Amino acid sequence: MDQMRVATQAELPASPGEHLSSPTTRAVLRIQHVVLGAAREYLESQGCTEVLLPIIGPVTDPGARGAKQVDIDYYGHRYKLMTSAILYKQAALTTFDRIYCIAPNVRLEPLETSSTSRHLAEFHQIDVELAGASRTEAMAVAEGTVRHIARRVTERAGEELDLLGRDVDAFVDLLAERFEFRTHAEAVSELTEIGHPQSPDAEIDWTGEALLSAKASRPFFLTDYPKGSRGFYDRESREEPGRLRNFDLLAPEGFGELASGGERENEYAAIIARMRETGENPAKYRWYLDMVRAGIPVSAGFGLGLERLTRYVAGLDFAWQATGFPKVPGLVSP
Amino acid sequence: MDQMRVATQAELPASPGEHLSSPTTRAVLRIQHVVLGAAREYLESQGCTEVLLPIIGPVTDPGARGAKQVDIDYYGHRYKLMTSAILYKQAALTTFDRIYCIAPNVRLEPLETSSTSRHLAEFHQIDVELAGASRTEAMAVAEGTVRHIARRVTERAGEELDLLGRDVDAFVDLLAERFEFRTHAEAVSELTEIGHPQSPDAEIDWTGEALLSAKASRPFFLTDYPKGSRGFYDRESREEPGRLRNFDLLAPEGFGELASGGERENEYAAIIARMRETGENPAKYRWYLDMVRAGIPVSAGFGLGLERLTRYVAGLDFAWQATGFPKVPGLVSP
Repeated sequence: MDQMRVATQAELPASPGEHLSSPTTRAVLRIQHVVLGAAREYLESQGCTEVLLPIIGPVTDPGARGAKQVDIDYYGHRYKLMTSAILYKQAALTTFDRIYCIAPNVRLEPLETSSTSRHLAEFHQIDVELAGASRTEAMAVAEGTVRHIARRVTERAGEELDLLGRDVDAFVDLLAERFEFRTHAEAVSELTEIGHPQSPDAEIDWTGEALLSAKASRPFFLTDYPKGSRGFYDRESREEPGRLRNFDLLAPEGFGELASGGERENEYAAIIARMRETGENPAKYRWYLDMVRAGIPVSAGFGLGLERLTRYVAGLDFAWQATGFPKVPGLVSP
Repeated sequence: MDQMRVATQAELPASPGEHLSSPTTRAVLRIQHVVLGAAREYLESQGCTEVLLPIIGPVTDPGARGAKQVDIDYYGHRYKLMTSAILYKQAALTTFDRIYCIAPNVRLEPLETSSTSRHLAEFHQIDVELAGASRTEAMAVAEGTVRHIARRVTERAGEELDLLGRDVDAFVDLLAERFEFRTHAEAVSELTEIGHPQSPDAEIDWTGEALLSAKASRPFFLTDYPKGSRGFYDRESREEPGRLRNFDLLAPEGFGELASGGERENEYAAIIARMRETGENPAKYRWYLDMVRAGIPVSAGFGLGLERLTRYVAGLDFAWQATGFPKVPGLVSP
């Protein structure tokens, strides 16, 4: 994927009317309907309570790699649109031990992402947070969610998969076998060996993700990202400073990242230190830090990108095909 | 309700930590979880497909009585946060005949609404739109949704209702009998008779709504609002010009408005004329008008306020008690 290439017309959505009324969109959104139902069904079977989280607030996730936050004027105060609901998920664990939300997010991704086929400026996450859970437990719930969704889609949307030319054999390995995992450091070695230079201290770049993803036949986890690559809320390993107790879930077949998650930092002093390291001003996070000081649970969780998951399940060329009202970065849209 | 009164401390949420961890909030959000599940269950039984609608766009519902829209800068273009997803619901009927969405909305309500106990600057609507439906059908689905929700809450959240001191007998009439309806004109006469002056050409004011609501023992509909009181999308009667083919659903016991809905205008010339009458600039609505010109279905639908419904079902004093992260108009909040 050439990050600086401008998208061609064929790679962009048609007019709203043509897009919404196309048989492709109808099949895709029918699959997404099954995805949503299956996600809720599975998460509720795991004891999660649905909680609706805000779409605006005084602060949001500062860790959205390279994307700009949207400011709003809220009665004279500078608020943000949610880039992710992570801080609110941690807070909501003071109400329920296990929560989920289908949360809308807005991120002004750089213009060059209009041609990556995987970026949307507006999208949804299946957001999950589990009090008292370890990374291993959060990974198991993420895996269980994806597997249950794939099972329900193959059971209930066979006709739509057919129409889209998506072979259900794509999910045989996913349904039969546990997802593998390797560390970020192992992935860096692997990429370096095949001639793709990847910094051990940074996020795996899109080309690197695509290379790893293309070799896989079912989703897989990458763990232990370097500290500098993520927000202050992903817990740093006490045994291996500089490594985060986090994970990404990647799709096979080149579809790339589906989910990010991990254990969360919940100690006041550690959060303040991490905020200072990442250049965040703690004064902005007052309501959150007040709650942290009073005590929020140890937790782990994840955010699973709904449109990216729909794209993978439906075998689509572009993420914008996975929504009725696509917002490709930089383009005027409904 | 004195619209200009400033809210007292006891009428406002405690700190985020105290609010989220209180047994009251836990009981209320458990009830809301049942409400959400029951709404989806009923609407899917009615053939509705869930479609996720945008939270930002170049235009939004201009008909949000007295509330201000929130502007955002979207790649140099002036976009809005959704005050309601009405235009997107109509558009989505070109994909599916019957749709629903649990849609977040933001409306900067005037500061004096902080003491009305029923306004939130951020809230959710259970949004439904039905192609080919009449007002009567949309009212039947709204009634069915509320009745199914009340049934499920009494079945599944008895303990939470107990904790909140909400007597399940409050729902006996709702569960047993069809909801009544009367016209806006009849409600105006009724209010005038009991000494409350109400203009026949305007929205029923909050005091009027509360008076009508206080006399009822189950939810009821008001229909045929005067044209000036609503947005351009509510269809004007061809037989009685000046009257809209719309409705509100009001809760009993003084809880006031739960839902608004109606038949929609789908004829290009009529929409342009209504836009001009309401001072809206058609040029701003280009994507929508392009779709209308190409043809969107005749439809009827409604938006049912989730927090207001939760407040009524749970018997709460304030709408902000019906959400984990309340935004009372004008107050700084998480």
